[in-house]
Amino acid sequence: MTSYDLDAESAESDSILYIDLNAIRINYQLFCARTAPAECAACVKADAYGLGLERVAPILADAGCTTFFVAHVAEGVALRELLDSVRIFVLHGAWPGNERNLFDYRLTPVLNSLAQVNTWAAFARARGELIEAAIHIDSGMTRLGLDENDLKVFEADPGQLDGLSVVHVMSHLSCGDEQDDAMNQVQLERFQRLRRKLPAETASLAASAGLFLDPKFHLDMVRAGIALYGGRPTAREPNPMSEVARVRARILQVRDVDSPRTVGYGAAHKVAEPSRIATISVGYADGYARSLGSLGRACIEGIAVPVVGRVSMDLVTLDVSEVPRDKVVEGGFVDVIGGGINLDDVAQKAGTISYEILTRLGRRYRRVYLGSGS
Amino acid sequence: MTSYDLDAESAESDSILYIDLNAIRINYQLFCARTAPAECAACVKADAYGLGLERVAPILADAGCTTFFVAHVAEGVALRELLDSVRIFVLHGAWPGNERNLFDYRLTPVLNSLAQVNTWAAFARARGELIEAAIHIDSGMTRLGLDENDLKVFEADPGQLDGLSVVHVMSHLSCGDEQDDAMNQVQLERFQRLRRKLPAETASLAASAGLFLDPKFHLDMVRAGIALYGGRPTAREPNPMSEVARVRARILQVRDVDSPRTVGYGAAHKVAEPSRIATISVGYADGYARSLGSLGRACIEGIAVPVVGRVSMDLVTLDVSEVPRDKVVEGGFVDVIGGGINLDDVAQKAGTISYEILTRLGRRYRRVYLGSGS
Repeated sequence: MTSYDLDAESAESDSILYIDLNAIRINYQLFCARTAPAECAACVKADAYGLGLERVAPILADAGCTTFFVAHVAEGVALRELLDSVRIFVLHGAWPGNERNLFDYRLTPVLNSLAQVNTWAAFARARGELIEAAIHIDSGMTRLGLDENDLKVFEADPGQLDGLSVVHVMSHLSCGDEQDDAMNQVQLERFQRLRRKLPAETASLAASAGLFLDPKFHLDMVRAGIALYGGRPTAREPNPMSEVARVRARILQVRDVDSPRTVGYGAAHKVAEPSRIATISVGYADGYARSLGSLGRACIEGIAVPVVGRVSMDLVTLDVSEVPRDKVVEGGFVDVIGGGINLDDVAQKAGTISYEILTRLGRRYRRVYLGSGS
Repeated sequence: MTSYDLDAESAESDSILYIDLNAIRINYQLFCARTAPAECAACVKADAYGLGLERVAPILADAGCTTFFVAHVAEGVALRELLDSVRIFVLHGAWPGNERNLFDYRLTPVLNSLAQVNTWAAFARARGELIEAAIHIDSGMTRLGLDENDLKVFEADPGQLDGLSVVHVMSHLSCGDEQDDAMNQVQLERFQRLRRKLPAETASLAASAGLFLDPKFHLDMVRAGIALYGGRPTAREPNPMSEVARVRARILQVRDVDSPRTVGYGAAHKVAEPSRIATISVGYADGYARSLGSLGRACIEGIAVPVVGRVSMDLVTLDVSEVPRDKVVEGGFVDVIGGGINLDDVAQKAGTISYEILTRLGRRYRRVYLGSGS
């Protein structure tokens, strides 16, 4: 990670979220290099995975990204106001009520059902002009997308697509993070068979895990998401991405415990022998998952220390007995995510995945963006 | 819950978070009535438990609340800009670097350690005026607060408090939500004994669970938090609070599944017999916990339906086979938290508590505030 601004820590902040824009740029470039000649699109839904669309999207555009994916129309509107000339796909598609915003902000809906196709095509025909769309094919995820029966409707009545310029057709892998899972090949074959029923210019199937999938999965475009933000794209391979997010929390109090007692809610942790307990300014309201109680770890000057007791809304308690006394100072800071505490390890201990850890990072951090991104 | 504005649902929104200000007022009034003559302070940290400080705090003030608790200085600053004349306690206290904001915004720090007392007292003496402070005593939580040894310092050298007007002394119960837990009595006795060592005007010990604790725990003030926002204050008693939060998500697609297949990431759910699957626009990025995969429930026109498969970042899949076909319409809405889906049940299924569910509610919802609050 880029060196960070210690001045930020000397101010009034309780906790700080460092976001390394330079690392995002490096990750995008690595992704492009490994998946070329496929285009590398960027998935920036959920506020760029919690890291701030407003700062992240321009960096990606500057690095050469021209195609972006969001989930909600409102996210597309926000992105269009940042970037005037990129293509923006809206994954949740079109329905009666959101066509106007889609059109006005030049957002391309990914149409997921016959009803969505009909809504958007009717809107185009009412305007009397050809309007761009993408179409999602369900190749086995059973989540969003047209299935084989739906596509037969177009074969029987191609006029249903009148008004639409289908610029992209996509699907999504259920098990992409397991590169040997037979489901991937099944989905690829089904997708290749079904996409021929549509007059689409380009196609995509793989997301971040595409980095480790055979190039036959890359098609025209790979949709990079978690990898851009430093998360491990697959469960089995070492993570080649650079760390992007680092959360540091202030030490509010350090306490010597010299008699047996309990720590935190539910008296869940028992201190048996003389110890030192540090209470830090981060909690589940900041996205430090409550499931990390008695499981998480923090890092103080290179030394890992355990979370003891339950995670509170605004506080976490650490056993810092093993850290030299002069390195645990009230008012100082500790790393809780990133900076020695691996994001994917945090997620695993919390019983989830890095995607959820990032997207739940709260709004109370002072957010410090590092690196010019160039 | 107050009747809500269906117009909001006809617009472009993917998902809507209704927040019933009238219910918050009712909850505050109920809390006051049950804990009188103790003062009822309101805990509005973490953006009023995720529900929006800017809208919630003025309602509480209008209902008669004159004392508020926040965790971070920045939260206190935001609250002061909303309410000029209330008392605002900042739970994380004072350290070198945040005294200026505390003072300028007339925030009263809750001093948690000798170092914090020294910082704030030195600031007061340097200004040559008496400044208000609260002091936190650790009565058994081992999280924040001065312990018996710390308090002995003041007995030996009362001059350390010079410059401070100690307006409040507080502590926090580890097991307040279990009204019969012996720890409560132990903490009460220790707190009563230790607080006498401080020249404080008023004292508080209980939070929301104080509603079900013996009045001897109420002291001068009870600090209401989760109860105001509709969460169950204790694990054992029926919840007397009114529902405040209701999350509704749009149905993006309804799919008939007539052949065996799997649903979602990891192919985690298997559909064996003919079913209907609805995909809705809410996911873990919206605070719908990933741990609710295959465990959560949604409610469609009064009928509860199960979440099937994993929770995605932006999507959840429901088995809606049991709901009449005309009631599950693409473009329609379902309740996922509140409105037939009890908040505390959601939390329990997710393996957590209502506090975490509320504070992690994401930023993508269209937020609709209901009730004038009067």
